[in-house]
Amino acid sequence: MGVLYGPKSYENEPHRDPSLIVNSKEPFNAETPPKALVRSFVTPEDLFYKRNHGPIPVIDDPNNYRLEIGGLVPGPLSLSLQDLRNLPKHTVTATLQCAGNRRTAMSKVRKVKGVGWAISALGNAVWGGARLHDVLELAGVRQESSKRHVEFSSVDVCKEENGGPYKASIPLSQAMSPEAEVILAYEMNGKELNRDHGFPLRVVVPGVIGARSVKWLTEIKVIEEECQGFFMQKDYKMFPPTVDWDNINWNSRRPLMDFPVQCAICSPAEGDLVKAGSKMKIQGYAVSGGGRGIERVDVSVDGGKTWQEAQRFQDDKEYIADNPEKCKRFAWVLWELTVELTNSPLEVVAKAVDAAANIQPEDVSSIWNLRGVLNTSWHRVKLNVVPPQSKL
Amino acid sequence: MGVLYGPKSYENEPHRDPSLIVNSKEPFNAETPPKALVRSFVTPEDLFYKRNHGPIPVIDDPNNYRLEIGGLVPGPLSLSLQDLRNLPKHTVTATLQCAGNRRTAMSKVRKVKGVGWAISALGNAVWGGARLHDVLELAGVRQESSKRHVEFSSVDVCKEENGGPYKASIPLSQAMSPEAEVILAYEMNGKELNRDHGFPLRVVVPGVIGARSVKWLTEIKVIEEECQGFFMQKDYKMFPPTVDWDNINWNSRRPLMDFPVQCAICSPAEGDLVKAGSKMKIQGYAVSGGGRGIERVDVSVDGGKTWQEAQRFQDDKEYIADNPEKCKRFAWVLWELTVELTNSPLEVVAKAVDAAANIQPEDVSSIWNLRGVLNTSWHRVKLNVVPPQSKL
Ligand SMILES: [Mo]
Ligand SMILES: [Mo]
Repeated sequence: MGVLYGPKSYENEPHRDPSLIVNSKEPFNAETPPKALVRSFVTPEDLFYKRNHGPIPVIDDPNNYRLEIGGLVPGPLSLSLQDLRNLPKHTVTATLQCAGNRRTAMSKVRKVKGVGWAISALGNAVWGGARLHDVLELAGVRQESSKRHVEFSSVDVCKEENGGPYKASIPLSQAMSPEAEVILAYEMNGKELNRDHGFPLRVVVPGVIGARSVKWLTEIKVIEEECQGFFMQKDYKMFPPTVDWDNINWNSRRPLMDFPVQCAICSPAEGDLVKAGSKMKIQGYAVSGGGRGIERVDVSVDGGKTWQEAQRFQDDKEYIADNPEKCKRFAWVLWELTVELTNSPLEVVAKAVDAAANIQPEDVSSIWNLRGVLNTSWHRVKLNVVPPQSKL
Repeated sequence: MGVLYGPKSYENEPHRDPSLIVNSKEPFNAETPPKALVRSFVTPEDLFYKRNHGPIPVIDDPNNYRLEIGGLVPGPLSLSLQDLRNLPKHTVTATLQCAGNRRTAMSKVRKVKGVGWAISALGNAVWGGARLHDVLELAGVRQESSKRHVEFSSVDVCKEENGGPYKASIPLSQAMSPEAEVILAYEMNGKELNRDHGFPLRVVVPGVIGARSVKWLTEIKVIEEECQGFFMQKDYKMFPPTVDWDNINWNSRRPLMDFPVQCAICSPAEGDLVKAGSKMKIQGYAVSGGGRGIERVDVSVDGGKTWQEAQRFQDDKEYIADNPEKCKRFAWVLWELTVELTNSPLEVVAKAVDAAANIQPEDVSSIWNLRGVLNTSWHRVKLNVVPPQSKL
């Protein structure tokens, strides 16, 4: 008894921070207030965005927890939490981002389907756990560039899976690569993982859309083909703007994995009152998938006519993209720029360039897609400028 | 003696195909006619773009060739071509692209510096040689994620290096990674490498701007800091549009490595006459750096108002991004779309999306940079439509 299970009702949800911006109550989906997001390089667990597809799983006695490793492995295994803790512990600072981050803004072009998210469906944490590579090796898998996949199964009850659990997969080559740093995390920010984030165990796939970092993990299988679950095959794919619900062919597109370069302004916020003649600090985040660093963040206060480069930081230290000594490659950068305000109308715009010189699209309509994923268009914030003598 | 050397004069240049489009004679810089580029998945050596910074090096007796491996390696080595051929042979199909590809179009916004290139400063070849990983391992280097770099030195005489040879470096972690497939190539398309492409030996760094695939290689050094040569530190960096020759700080930017997603229309060409009512086949290439596949190619014939998806091919086979069975991840895709022409004005536009959902910028002005590198903006070709009864 006491094994991990997914309840059908929402009677046993964990306590949540009241400052979270709630986008849906059941399942619970909520994001961080943007100004809180730029307060620290590592996002506090309580403020980290919550993304769920059903009630939060429950385990009465964590001693009874087992992780099953099976499928096409020479030696199937059943591991306890203690077994996992006995493996070498690896920590990775990684930003998880929901593919639906900034979806709400995409709906302004044309209505998209899915939970509405403003700009905070992402967070940066220090994840601690066993390397997936080490666990697969224990099961007899050897480093190989094979065509196989590794499937992760949860225990939650998802209506999209007709009451079945959430599933996803990644290529076996990524699972086995030391550079990919895929881990089975039992810790978040140095503390025991909490229920909202996957207690007792979750996968963390750095640089990849959050949807592949399966929470409440109970089974890992090496399989021949990629996972056929709903969230791999009928969701989290990006279609061109020409595809709508009447002409969609899900098989025509690949599941999203690495996310593209993203950037947003967290402070000030749309509509904030600012005083002409004063100084204003502009702050935000930028992040790219696949371990690509952030080479540059450009900020404009005149709607995109002129630009200045923002300063980038990680852990309050100056950041240099792709310098392994000076950057955590799976983590976001926080950036800031202080400008002196004039009387002119103010529209702040931010965009980033990643280490492979990838850029963000200027216009959201060029990347509009019916599921509203990966809105990475230039982020714009309009402010109200008041005269220098005004009281704010 | 007969060792490999870089002559100071252009008296001993190799024969070149007369159909090449020559952008500079001395040093010889030339590109493929665009319509020839889409004729085959593998670009013939003679038509492959030529990019040089000085006269082509000469070796009288290849038996005297030595590759020196030194610097921070436990066991320095001196290898002959036969030693290299005795190592396991690895082949990789990789598209090399000059960072200056499509530079000419960037100058239309504001003049940039550098050799002018239209859309064919790239080509796709099957490179055969020894793995850099194996050679470094022979010298006692072990797989490690260290902060060191691997420097490649040529023997050519470059005026940018004040008569010294061309040099570049890549991170040691990339050099040692089996997935990165960095090779020391002595073959191109199954034939002995020719002089224009680096005979007797060159580096091929798949997915990275061509400038790091050093030709006429004679020395490999493991070093503490990245290469300080001209082409790493004072060239091949991307600055924002706000930086010009009067305010440039070369140290503020990182050397370009992986290139971003790129796409161009090779046929028809700007100004071609086409007949209303006829069918037209539109063909081009698309490629992304870092081993990221091409997820989609969108083509418009009305200047970008409406779009259709093109079909992608590799080796005449249907291509599926990131499916290791169905794609060569370091090679371009060729694409095609057949459309029926109406009387309306025709502007063909093409843009690609890579496997990490990276997109191309719509407008070249947003990525303008003083060195004219990485013009990856949407490619546009205007055609002249003539009435159905016209003779073409
Ligand atoms: Mo998500
Ligand atoms: Mo180049």
